[in-house]
Formats: sequence, structure tokens, C-alpha cells
Amino acid sequence: MKISVVRDILDANERIARENRRLFDRKGLMVMNLMSSPGAGKTSLLERTIDALGAELRVGVIEGDIQSSKDAERIARLGVQVVQINTGGACHLDGNMIRDALDALDLDQMDLLVVENVGNLVCPAEFRVGEDFKAMILSVTEGEDKPAKYPLMFRESKVLLINKIDLLPYLDCSLEEIREEAFRVNPDLVLFEVSCRTGEGLDRWVAWLKETTRARRPALD
Amino acid sequence: MKISVVRDILDANERIARENRRLFDRKGLMVMNLMSSPGAGKTSLLERTIDALGAELRVGVIEGDIQSSKDAERIARLGVQVVQINTGGACHLDGNMIRDALDALDLDQMDLLVVENVGNLVCPAEFRVGEDFKAMILSVTEGEDKPAKYPLMFRESKVLLINKIDLLPYLDCSLEEIREEAFRVNPDLVLFEVSCRTGEGLDRWVAWLKETTRARRPALD
Repeated sequence: MKISVVRDILDANERIARENRRLFDRKGLMVMNLMSSPGAGKTSLLERTIDALGAELRVGVIEGDIQSSKDAERIARLGVQVVQINTGGACHLDGNMIRDALDALDLDQMDLLVVENVGNLVCPAEFRVGEDFKAMILSVTEGEDKPAKYPLMFRESKVLLINKIDLLPYLDCSLEEIREEAFRVNPDLVLFEVSCRTGEGLDRWVAWLKETTRARRPALD
Repeated sequence: MKISVVRDILDANERIARENRRLFDRKGLMVMNLMSSPGAGKTSLLERTIDALGAELRVGVIEGDIQSSKDAERIARLGVQVVQINTGGACHLDGNMIRDALDALDLDQMDLLVVENVGNLVCPAEFRVGEDFKAMILSVTEGEDKPAKYPLMFRESKVLLINKIDLLPYLDCSLEEIREEAFRVNPDLVLFEVSCRTGEGLDRWVAWLKETTRARRPALD
């Protein structure tokens, strides 16, 4: 009974996610669903990334939080389109929330739409919103055991950004071991090792994102 | 429709949590539900705490993880009773899972039972398991905005442990601001500032836990 209800909810979400997907396709828009634990650095990564992209790509952001508009305020300062979703308790974004948020955005003035999901290493991985790909951030402060303990998110993600590498000298934590554990769960991960604080490693990530977004856009654009 | 189903699930959980509660009362057992984001240091805190309590309190642990038994293996090394729950995807522990896990524990040989919840700053706060109180850990690496963004967990918790304070010199993060933001959401929080790595601040926490657990036990014990 409980299981069938959960399946109904997931099926309904899948239908709406596909509708979102079709809209994004018509607009030639690249959509990234960005996920992580609370405080791993999603908004900091976005700030750095938008700053580095400059005028080369027009970015839009949907900010997902249970409460508060702190993240949207941070992103708005960069002069890009941004809309805040407050889930009011829900632990993830779903296709329907994204569809509603799209009304507040001008997709024709956008090359890349980033959906910053609720900080949660579990539930967001279960709900597609119509994205091209999922990216996740793992902070080195979270330790090496996270891929084994939260495998779905690592499996669903195309990109893994290992963040806060500037803190490695002060932690009992091995970057090699994080890498190994992550690849054990998903050997196809595109891996970046970065520090949003110092800027280390961000060049490669920004170059990859630029290239991937450009490859996504229809030839006539 | 979706809402009424969610309410049914919460009501059913509440009933089982109350049954667990009655059992714990009969045994004179103190039960703490320990919650945090992934990697904030729940298992490290438990290792340090169990070590410091020594023979003074008999501790038992229920480890909750989506997958893997890494945490239970760490705790088992300390020679205390421990049982691992694998939720197989579910993002929180509920009353029913705890009831099932109790079969593997001898509650008569225990003063304090710690339920280490799934690493998640959202969902675990919604489900009581029969605990006396909830405690949460926030790592300083998660930043000052977490109480405003995840208010329910801060509101539901009696105890807040701010962990990894040894990393403060290397972060753009203010301990005062975390404190302020936390008390804004829940002025009644019992606050401890600790480093499970260096041991700083743990004495006060362990003394509090010892005193609170002893006060809980029936006078005849």
C-alpha cells in the first residue's frame, strides 16, 4: 500500500519531468541538477562558476531550500536570473516545483539553467526534474565513506565535484580514498577536485561546463 | 490525497514510537536520537563519548544507514552492544525500524541507547522513534545559514553539538554567528562546542550526558 503510493508519486513526477525536458529541448537549454549534503558548497560553486563564465554563457538559477531565500539573494548579486523555491518542509525538488518556477524565468535569455537542489544526500537523487545531467558535490570534510553509504546519489550523478580540498592538510581524510570509493560506486563519474575558497581546480570545471553546454545547443543557434 | 497518506504514515509511526517509549520507560533506559548531515561526525562523537564514559554507563547503539555496516563495525570495536539497520533507500529511521532492531539488543544490560540516524538534516526530524530527546550535530564546515534553512531539526533538538571547531582558523565562518542563528530558531538548545578530532570541549558534553542519563533512571535502580 505504502509502496504503491510511492510508485504513483514517482510516476507522476516522471511524467512532469519529461514535459519539462521537452520544453528545455525546444529552447536548446542545458539544465544541470546540482545536489549535495547541506553546506558542501553548492551556492559557493555557483557563485564562482557564474563569475568565471562571465558573458560567455547566460546562466539562470533555480534555488531550492526548505525555508529562507539566502541562496537566491547571493546569486541575485551576480546579476543573473534567479528564482527561489521554498519547499516548506519537503526534502527535495520535484518536476512540478520546477515547472512552477519556470514561469518566473525567461528561458530565451538563457544557455544554462542550474537547479540547486535542497541540501540532502538522499532524496533529491530519486526525483528527476527534467535535467540533462545531475552533478553532485562532496566536501572532503564529509569523509571517505559517503559513496558506500549514499550510493544512489553517486550512481545518478554524471559529475562529482570534490570540494574544500584546501582543508585536506587539517583533516584525517585521504583524497585518493574518496576517489577510489566514488569510482567503486560509479566508474563513469566525471571528477573535479576543487576549492571554492581558494579557486583551485575551478578552471578545469568551468572549461568542461562551457564545452558541454555549447555542445548541447542546437547547431542553428 | 498525497497529504492524507503522509499523515497516515506519521500517525502510524507515532503509535509505534509510543510503544517503544513505554518499553524504554519500563527498562529505565535513556534513549537519544542523534541526527546530522552526512559526515558531520555522529560516529566519531559516539566513539569519543563511549570511550570517555568507560564503565560508568552501559551504552548500546543502533546504527542507521541506507547501506553498508561501516559505522556498526566502528562502534563494535569499542565492545558495546550495537546493531546496524540498513534502510535500503529510506532517508530516515522510524519507530518500526527501531522496534525490529531492539530484538538484537539486551536492554537490561544498558543505561543509554543511542540511535544514530541516517545522515540527513531534513527527514529524520519528522519521525519520532521513542527517544527521550533528540541531539543534533552541526559541523562548522557547513556554515552559519543552516539553522535558517533547516529549521525543523534545530527546533526538534534539545542538544546542539557544534563539531570540528579545530577547523575554524581555516574557514570563513563565525562560531558566534552559528550560535546566534541557532538560538534564533530554538532559544532552548543545550549547546556544546566540540572537536571530535582534538577532543576539545568533549568533557562538558560527556559530563552532561552522564548526569542527564543518571537523572533519568528510576530511583530504585
